[in-house]
Amino acid sequence: MSTDRDTPRARRVLSKGRMEGFSDGVFAIAITLLILGIALHPPGTPLEQLLHAWPAYLAYVVSFLTIGSGWLLHTAMTDQLARADSILLRLNLLLLIVVVFLPFPTGLVADALGDTSAERVFVTMYGLTLLTIRLLGFALDGYARHENLYSPHGDDAELHRDRRKLLPVVLGYVIAILSGLAIPVLAVALYFTLAVYLVLPFREVNRLLFRR
Amino acid sequence: MSTDRDTPRARRVLSKGRMEGFSDGVFAIAITLLILGIALHPPGTPLEQLLHAWPAYLAYVVSFLTIGSGWLLHTAMTDQLARADSILLRLNLLLLIVVVFLPFPTGLVADALGDTSAERVFVTMYGLTLLTIRLLGFALDGYARHENLYSPHGDDAELHRDRRKLLPVVLGYVIAILSGLAIPVLAVALYFTLAVYLVLPFREVNRLLFRR
Amino acid sequence: MSTDRDTPRARRVLSKGRMEGFSDGVFAIAITLLILGIALHPPGTPLEQLLHAWPAYLAYVVSFLTIGSGWLLHTAMTDQLARADSILLRLNLLLLIVVVFLPFPTGLVADALGDTSAERVFVTMYGLTLLTIRLLGFALDGYARHENLYSPHGDDAELHRDRRKLLPVVLGYVIAILSGLAIPVLAVALYFTLAVYLVLPFREVNRLLFRR
Amino acid sequence: MSTDRDTPRARRVLSKGRMEGFSDGVFAIAITLLILGIALHPPGTPLEQLLHAWPAYLAYVVSFLTIGSGWLLHTAMTDQLARADSILLRLNLLLLIVVVFLPFPTGLVADALGDTSAERVFVTMYGLTLLTIRLLGFALDGYARHENLYSPHGDDAELHRDRRKLLPVVLGYVIAILSGLAIPVLAVALYFTLAVYLVLPFREVNRLLFRR
Repeated sequence: MSTDRDTPRARRVLSKGRMEGFSDGVFAIAITLLILGIALHPPGTPLEQLLHAWPAYLAYVVSFLTIGSGWLLHTAMTDQLARADSILLRLNLLLLIVVVFLPFPTGLVADALGDTSAERVFVTMYGLTLLTIRLLGFALDGYARHENLYSPHGDDAELHRDRRKLLPVVLGYVIAILSGLAIPVLAVALYFTLAVYLVLPFREVNRLLFRR
Repeated sequence: MSTDRDTPRARRVLSKGRMEGFSDGVFAIAITLLILGIALHPPGTPLEQLLHAWPAYLAYVVSFLTIGSGWLLHTAMTDQLARADSILLRLNLLLLIVVVFLPFPTGLVADALGDTSAERVFVTMYGLTLLTIRLLGFALDGYARHENLYSPHGDDAELHRDRRKLLPVVLGYVIAILSGLAIPVLAVALYFTLAVYLVLPFREVNRLLFRR
Repeated sequence: MSTDRDTPRARRVLSKGRMEGFSDGVFAIAITLLILGIALHPPGTPLEQLLHAWPAYLAYVVSFLTIGSGWLLHTAMTDQLARADSILLRLNLLLLIVVVFLPFPTGLVADALGDTSAERVFVTMYGLTLLTIRLLGFALDGYARHENLYSPHGDDAELHRDRRKLLPVVLGYVIAILSGLAIPVLAVALYFTLAVYLVLPFREVNRLLFRR
Repeated sequence: MSTDRDTPRARRVLSKGRMEGFSDGVFAIAITLLILGIALHPPGTPLEQLLHAWPAYLAYVVSFLTIGSGWLLHTAMTDQLARADSILLRLNLLLLIVVVFLPFPTGLVADALGDTSAERVFVTMYGLTLLTIRLLGFALDGYARHENLYSPHGDDAELHRDRRKLLPVVLGYVIAILSGLAIPVLAVALYFTLAVYLVLPFREVNRLLFRR
């Protein structure tokens, strides 16, 4: 039947180049729109206004590092892909829909810190968004492995590192989100710690510092 | 005559690479600007405000899936192109002018749901924009086939799938737009259904679920 | 002297790829930000508000077509480049600084039409910005020809077409800007005509319509 | 040990292509978002409002040239890279986090000029951001040289030029920032001078003007 024949052919044909270009664009724009969430709120002297905006800076850095580390994982993954298929492209869209959503809760957290009841709700929603981005990133990786979309020759230390971090990271987000129900600022501090942990390549830093 | 000679030569020379890069950029940015349309509207507790914004989330997801499936079709199409010509580049600009416009009616719908008279007008305009994006996407594909711009060797299941969906989709949008004149929320629900129908690769999902 | 030797070497080394990627990105984003200039202004029924925003739609289309045709010229040009040099990259930055500026006067015109004194000022500034974009585009082309940066083998109908349009376009903008001092709406109508004239590939359209 | 073996392998595998694409995207978007910081402030005739916004135009041009010259340096650098490694990708993210931040202090300066106490604070913060971008750009270059990531065959006049400008530029920013504590407008004028100095390729301009 022609249908059965053109489906596997189409799977071979699908190139990963456009998926990379489009995803890079979306990651780059989502990470850049984060800056629109930062604003000063009078009253106060200019310096006081700048300093009082610290929750906005913190939320900016946490979201930037989360999208940034998501992009690093995404790059490591697609670098190793031998090909893409229809479902991978859709899973990728699903990941991007949440990445693009992130500036919204980031802005809410930036504005809310200091207002206790708003903090609790927005920080929880923020944490759930961050966790969803990580889970969808791992789902993409899992699908690509399950469907043998990776190149057989390539192997990648970035991907291995990220896979080893899956369990501690998910556990970390669950703890952070739950602790945020009591102390919202603590949750944001934990989100920050998790983002730094995800971005830092400990082994390479060690190698660099203690080479000899 | 030199004019007749340089016209076909120019057609051969025109590469499709920049059309892909520019279009990927525009799709990526338009899809990302959608998030700027989401805002909370006091009064209410933070949780109530979050929940009351559901029309904004729905419009965000519908527009994201519509642009996303438009991008998938666009990618499948340009992947199969052997070359571009002057008119294809202009038709592409025409498609992009409507894609970039989409965040505007998306924002109107996000703000209007709940206000009956505004709903009717904005939801209709939103549906017409969505339909125009689909029609221009199919026009691009039709022009490329008519002018033999596709590579003769390549063939693509994504493109076939999209072409098979042309008639039901156009019919679906007409029904959705008309029903929105009576019940706007119904139209938005139908737009959502159509976007999911356009994005889902049923055959591949079947293959994945019932492989053995 | 080593300095004299490394300058020409550097000129050979400079690739045009990143200039294309960055410029495509800037064109794509500037063209997409135009949509942020469209907003409805109460009072009025929703339908009246939609219809009364026609100057915003018109300014959106004029700016979209101007950036779009600028991108078409830019693409045709860089496709033919054999290499880039330091000064071409700077001229390109100068062009982009004005392209990125365009959403600002576009938004002013969108808001001002109807208010006679504001119209006159903003429409003039808008026309000067449009004219500057065209002039800088032609300057880039002129510099590349003067410095023999184009590939000797390639030649391009898009570029020839644009060069033939240089004089009528500059003349057209001067007339449009001057006429706008008396009747601003006339100037915007002329800007629209000029943008359509720049985008339309008359010869190809003729070929398509009267092929047989 | 397998760990020691896969680390150098991963370093070889990491391609620089995605780093270029993502960085180009972020530079392009950050440079384009600058325009959102320009707005007119009533009261006044339309012409007066346009003219009174000069600090916004000045801040726009300074930031555009700073990001633009940062992008030129970044391009020259990555063009010469033979490969990327994990730490270079993170240093690059660190640079981008500050580039994306720049539209925020740019907007503050654009709004503040004229208000003496706000000027002093915001102009200082703006200068520190500009200086940090330059320092992180030089840090990227320094790391790449230290780790032998550059291609041994390539050498680049753009990079040499930028390295020669490091010391005068850092000194210039320190002087500008300090002078801004007394006279904020002077600091902005110096930032402008430094950005022009960074962008201008003096030797090439000389070559062009006095070729014969």
